[in-house]
Amino acid sequence: MLTDLLKPTTSSPARRRVTVGEVVFGGPAVPVIAGPCAVEPGYVEHALAMRAAGASMLRGSVFKPRTRPDAFQGMGEEGLVLVEKARALTGRPVLVEPLSVEHVELLTGRVDAFMIGARSMQNTPLLRAAGRSGLPVVLKRGMAATYDEWLAAADYVLSEDNPNVILCERGIRTFETATRNTLDVSAVPVLRERTPLPVIVDPSHGTGIWSLVTPMALAAVAAGADGLLIEVHPSPEHALSDGPQQLRPATFADLMARLKPVAEAVGRAL
Amino acid sequence: MLTDLLKPTTSSPARRRVTVGEVVFGGPAVPVIAGPCAVEPGYVEHALAMRAAGASMLRGSVFKPRTRPDAFQGMGEEGLVLVEKARALTGRPVLVEPLSVEHVELLTGRVDAFMIGARSMQNTPLLRAAGRSGLPVVLKRGMAATYDEWLAAADYVLSEDNPNVILCERGIRTFETATRNTLDVSAVPVLRERTPLPVIVDPSHGTGIWSLVTPMALAAVAAGADGLLIEVHPSPEHALSDGPQQLRPATFADLMARLKPVAEAVGRAL
Amino acid sequence: MLTDLLKPTTSSPARRRVTVGEVVFGGPAVPVIAGPCAVEPGYVEHALAMRAAGASMLRGSVFKPRTRPDAFQGMGEEGLVLVEKARALTGRPVLVEPLSVEHVELLTGRVDAFMIGARSMQNTPLLRAAGRSGLPVVLKRGMAATYDEWLAAADYVLSEDNPNVILCERGIRTFETATRNTLDVSAVPVLRERTPLPVIVDPSHGTGIWSLVTPMALAAVAAGADGLLIEVHPSPEHALSDGPQQLRPATFADLMARLKPVAEAVGRAL
Amino acid sequence: MLTDLLKPTTSSPARRRVTVGEVVFGGPAVPVIAGPCAVEPGYVEHALAMRAAGASMLRGSVFKPRTRPDAFQGMGEEGLVLVEKARALTGRPVLVEPLSVEHVELLTGRVDAFMIGARSMQNTPLLRAAGRSGLPVVLKRGMAATYDEWLAAADYVLSEDNPNVILCERGIRTFETATRNTLDVSAVPVLRERTPLPVIVDPSHGTGIWSLVTPMALAAVAAGADGLLIEVHPSPEHALSDGPQQLRPATFADLMARLKPVAEAVGRAL
Repeated sequence: MLTDLLKPTTSSPARRRVTVGEVVFGGPAVPVIAGPCAVEPGYVEHALAMRAAGASMLRGSVFKPRTRPDAFQGMGEEGLVLVEKARALTGRPVLVEPLSVEHVELLTGRVDAFMIGARSMQNTPLLRAAGRSGLPVVLKRGMAATYDEWLAAADYVLSEDNPNVILCERGIRTFETATRNTLDVSAVPVLRERTPLPVIVDPSHGTGIWSLVTPMALAAVAAGADGLLIEVHPSPEHALSDGPQQLRPATFADLMARLKPVAEAVGRAL
Repeated sequence: MLTDLLKPTTSSPARRRVTVGEVVFGGPAVPVIAGPCAVEPGYVEHALAMRAAGASMLRGSVFKPRTRPDAFQGMGEEGLVLVEKARALTGRPVLVEPLSVEHVELLTGRVDAFMIGARSMQNTPLLRAAGRSGLPVVLKRGMAATYDEWLAAADYVLSEDNPNVILCERGIRTFETATRNTLDVSAVPVLRERTPLPVIVDPSHGTGIWSLVTPMALAAVAAGADGLLIEVHPSPEHALSDGPQQLRPATFADLMARLKPVAEAVGRAL
Repeated sequence: MLTDLLKPTTSSPARRRVTVGEVVFGGPAVPVIAGPCAVEPGYVEHALAMRAAGASMLRGSVFKPRTRPDAFQGMGEEGLVLVEKARALTGRPVLVEPLSVEHVELLTGRVDAFMIGARSMQNTPLLRAAGRSGLPVVLKRGMAATYDEWLAAADYVLSEDNPNVILCERGIRTFETATRNTLDVSAVPVLRERTPLPVIVDPSHGTGIWSLVTPMALAAVAAGADGLLIEVHPSPEHALSDGPQQLRPATFADLMARLKPVAEAVGRAL
Repeated sequence: MLTDLLKPTTSSPARRRVTVGEVVFGGPAVPVIAGPCAVEPGYVEHALAMRAAGASMLRGSVFKPRTRPDAFQGMGEEGLVLVEKARALTGRPVLVEPLSVEHVELLTGRVDAFMIGARSMQNTPLLRAAGRSGLPVVLKRGMAATYDEWLAAADYVLSEDNPNVILCERGIRTFETATRNTLDVSAVPVLRERTPLPVIVDPSHGTGIWSLVTPMALAAVAAGADGLLIEVHPSPEHALSDGPQQLRPATFADLMARLKPVAEAVGRAL
């Protein structure tokens, strides 16, 4: 039964490995997914720079669920062409976020994994469609979702006979406003006790401030995270969305350099 | 410009009236929308009882966004037939929740208004589709949405040239667990200062406990609410969802009797 | 046993009446405690104006637990003299906040009731000292306290053989920042089910914005509150603390006029 | 000016070192303070075991601010004698929590540093008294305190000409109930940007679950924490308070062994 993946166990459950292209989540290595908040012109060159800095996989969303209707909503189909080029050129798998069942259909066959964003965590028709696609699904925690609700959302994907779910902690909403969200690093050890599914962490949305991304990335891996999702933009001050939390490529390379000894200190590798 | 509806004003803005069938939200009367959490067999008889107890409009959802995939997900098309019967028999307009763009298309022409649930508040394709339908939209506040984010979500509907948005406070997630959510009654006077759109309150989800529904309904109207959304079930202990928060018809009738003098005390009517 | 006051009951417990001077909390009337955030020069004249506007009791704190050490910390002993004058002149009982055991000793015999502020809700030596004084204690809910923790704090007072506890909801801290706190009106019906102790509401701290005080005061009484605590200042723009949330005397008089029909609508009086 | 310690700076401020006995916080080493939640009989033997496992300093509270009045409130003066014995025997400095000004006076000269607990973070008379003592003060973050409020509380101590403040993150209250609190690891890098004061982390209260303490301790140090505060009890199942979150001595020794490489990976030592 798939839903055994969500049953609490008395001992820490054996980790389940989820493979995206040649990248393995839940094994000894800690893959890092990197990319801009949204695909913008120049994405292909940027993707090469991210691969050079150590990215295992590319983030490349073309539909953006923005708070306001007059904000940039993503490049859509035109952006998807850039994602496909970057994928072909770098040989790295790509992670793209659908916002609707229709997007799932459009993206299937052209991307390597789906990201279900925090705002969509309880969009049950979307979860089912992503599940039916058979592709790996990175399921972000809703901004106010408990662990139980998050795992129940995962169960919508798993129930479609798709065991390839990766859970992604991205910060919860609290009273503290100095950070965009409060990154709940505890989610990592809690979920590792409750489920064999890989758990990764997004310190970019989790903090909203670029200077906090590296220390929180180190913290996440020290706590046992199975991967990271990092926003990197060639020129954050000109980014069409989420500029303040995106790293420059050089800062990302520095993060990777600092991450390596921490991963090794907890018995992992990059 | 429609988005003037969302501009802060120095004085309290003139109320905008939104009409659903013959029911007016934002005028001197305080309409009450009542019905079970989900449409179940027996809905038609129940609708007659709710009309008799004073309901102005009927709640009748057939697609339910449940936390777990193995929970009752609504009667779907079969339930919609019951909703149409109840609508014809009672002469009361019906409010139904779509979960996807496809649902909006299915429901258009068969219901009087759309409810966008808390989990869908930032489902932007759904907001746009509901906006394009031209039908009035009851937009529930997301569980962790600020007033600003809620109004920005309303703007997705308004931006489709649909000015018929009714905002519905339904409780926010806080640290207090004795109630299902914390009903933020302050949302009523805050939003009445910020927008002319009608603001209604759902004390059923807002508290999660039937015995708190009547006092919180009175509080909401005393604070200036333009309407109420109340869960009523003929037999809550047998309800397929949300049993603990649904009122029996007799308790609902009692609520309506107690509400009348409070509405009058603040210059409103039922 | 005193702690029976805190035991959950299957039916709504009979209300306990707590008397301060000639003012009764928990009976059919809804007393209103009014006064400035902190005692300032001019307090005596202001007290007369508040009595004229309908205040049953006076708020008059002379020690202020301010967030920053360089903020006004209250008039201390000098202010206490003003409080005593106001009390003698108006014939109204006074409510004063001690911050330490030493303050309890200083105030005993000179004030009619103690207010334990939100920041002090779990200051156990202070709770015990207030309990031992025998004076009625208005116990504010901590900013992040659950109902259970609040009642446990009340038990520290009750355990000193002092049954005269009045619970005061004053807003909790949530993610919403448009209001200073989120006034949890549900606390009123929840606590009325759990304890016979009177429950009053402070919409001034609960909202932090003067224009929201009146609608939330009406909401609180409609929900069953046994009293109100309202900040009123002769000239809020010159107040030494909490200016934005204090009512002018004329606005307070208007609140009282609008409160009367609401209280009557729920079977209470002013 | 002392309050320069709290001024935001454009670059990361130079770290300030706070010395307790021979233990230095804010330098290259990461001291670990360990001990039971409350001093209980057997404390002296336990202290020796903690020193053997690598504790730099001992936690030894004798006055406990418990939620309920019928819970164990600490051993008081009798426990203080045990603390003094342990201090003499181990040569390790001791950290003790006062709940009132009177406690500060009682403890001065007998302990090495004061801990101001989360419930007391805004107890301004206590903060001032601790400041005046001249002893180092470990100031825990209040359960619902923003960074700004926490630093303002620190300013009450600093304003008494006492620059020896150590900030301690111990988890904040959020909607998630699977953990006792949500440990906000981001507090470490945020505060390191805002203040030169040392920042330590208490993963025991921060999680409330012993199995999460080690991963969160590693995370805290990876994020840059200047120290740790860990609850260790010889027999947690018999502890008079907070049993579920206390480590056994052997688990604590394991934590220390796993911490060493992580500290080194981020350029620190134990």
